[in-house]
Amino acid sequence: MVVGSVAYDGIETPHGRVERTLGGAATYIALSAGYFTPTKIVAVVGDDFDNEDRDLLAGRGIGLEGLEQKPGKTFYWSGVYSRDMNERTTLRTDLNVFAEFDPKIPASYRDQPYLLLGNIQPALQRSVREQMNGVRLVGGDTMNYWINAYRAELLATIRQWHFLLINASEARQQSGHYNLRKAADSILDMGPDTLVIKRGEYGAMLFRRNSHFVAPGYLLDNVFDPTGAGDCFAGGFTGYLASLGHQPGDDSIDRRELARAVIYGSVMGSFCCERFGVDRFRTLTRAEIDQRFAEFRDFTEF
Amino acid sequence: MVVGSVAYDGIETPHGRVERTLGGAATYIALSAGYFTPTKIVAVVGDDFDNEDRDLLAGRGIGLEGLEQKPGKTFYWSGVYSRDMNERTTLRTDLNVFAEFDPKIPASYRDQPYLLLGNIQPALQRSVREQMNGVRLVGGDTMNYWINAYRAELLATIRQWHFLLINASEARQQSGHYNLRKAADSILDMGPDTLVIKRGEYGAMLFRRNSHFVAPGYLLDNVFDPTGAGDCFAGGFTGYLASLGHQPGDDSIDRRELARAVIYGSVMGSFCCERFGVDRFRTLTRAEIDQRFAEFRDFTEF
Repeated sequence: MVVGSVAYDGIETPHGRVERTLGGAATYIALSAGYFTPTKIVAVVGDDFDNEDRDLLAGRGIGLEGLEQKPGKTFYWSGVYSRDMNERTTLRTDLNVFAEFDPKIPASYRDQPYLLLGNIQPALQRSVREQMNGVRLVGGDTMNYWINAYRAELLATIRQWHFLLINASEARQQSGHYNLRKAADSILDMGPDTLVIKRGEYGAMLFRRNSHFVAPGYLLDNVFDPTGAGDCFAGGFTGYLASLGHQPGDDSIDRRELARAVIYGSVMGSFCCERFGVDRFRTLTRAEIDQRFAEFRDFTEF
Repeated sequence: MVVGSVAYDGIETPHGRVERTLGGAATYIALSAGYFTPTKIVAVVGDDFDNEDRDLLAGRGIGLEGLEQKPGKTFYWSGVYSRDMNERTTLRTDLNVFAEFDPKIPASYRDQPYLLLGNIQPALQRSVREQMNGVRLVGGDTMNYWINAYRAELLATIRQWHFLLINASEARQQSGHYNLRKAADSILDMGPDTLVIKRGEYGAMLFRRNSHFVAPGYLLDNVFDPTGAGDCFAGGFTGYLASLGHQPGDDSIDRRELARAVIYGSVMGSFCCERFGVDRFRTLTRAEIDQRFAEFRDFTEF
């Protein structure tokens, strides 16, 4: 079960521009996780939400019972990427119906075993966690805004999580350490037993108390649009772990499986960048995913 | 055989400062390569070159017959690193005797099979290459200055090389492509059949015509001083390849061995950063190197 934003995005990269395309963290996470495990969304959209976008999600088998539709407009974000696409500038953020997002978990979702909390207000993330019975694995994402302005709430929230996924600058900000190994140790003291640091084109790192794993990024021929890549990473990472059929009480996930989850996350993030918005997921197959996973092995083995 | 600069460096990092310590590309390369294969230096120093520095090199078994001593001062460089150590500002560059460096290869060195050309003027690199008989493997380093201002000379020089080691921004500059895969293809068209792109804390990539290998960086607890890390990478990379006992005519190095050479290069670069200047090499053992190599396997396998 994924909780987060479903949005419309306006995106400009050196390769082109779209005015309004399906986006939002929960969208990317669910599309990505859906290749590994049955996935359900809890989110809110406005009455302008297109049927064809609903059909895209439903067509990928994503449960939409928790996709609340309210009067008003869907969350809209637009931004423009720098020439090297390593930076982006937000042009517009219209929260619209998302401003009052109060996640309502359908009764039939409350016993879902795997919970991924997209980047929303920490108190909402915590409230969702507390509405669930029998969660086996819970984790999520956050961002600099919550780290800065909602630190106490965020700390209370992630204390209950098994894993946290953030980027390197956020890990530094949250821990106060520039060195990533020290930053990771400090964050592991805050509750999660697993920390994943996303590094964009440089890959990802996974830290546990006494071990770590580092994956380089996949080298794409063309990065069309990096929007959603981090969320697709989260979806692939969590979706793969969920697919392992983790049993209640089994809180020691094999380190090798965590490493493979990082690779599947990286694979999903890389596919995401190959087209604008969610377009790559209109055609992507599980066979392509597994082929790229094998490529990762090939270009990292020595 | 290594050709390049031997220098004195003044270094300031957030961890401290030294006024005058042994440095120079050939020094770092030779100290690093010396752990893998018998190594000889061709370089020039002034009459201020300290006996204890000569003893350090000789004590590591490095051949100094080609270390010419001339009246005047040894090349001096000083610089200061930014707080995150990802950038450095040069404070002083006194070429001194290095300004007239004209590499003279001792007769007994001319049949050396492995040649690594540090970052010096491309015409000098080419002249060295042409003084050698029976080189089996030749490669080297260059930098933005030569790429910009000496392009034709540089192209004529690297056309004769088996491998080129440069950093990512230099690869982009030399090829005119931002995308590293495209940059690599373009540079492989210029002569070398192997391109290594050094990415600092993010590791390294190796490209050949139809394959590539990517290694993440080693995560250090403390980066004391990154000076020389790229040269130590080059020394470990080339030294390991030389240690394989590459036979004449055998110009197809196994792809797996090239990958291991990248890892040994990364290992040596990581050790270099643990102390100021060349200090780590005063105590480093081959057993420590092999242990870190094994660590690389441990944190990258999935």
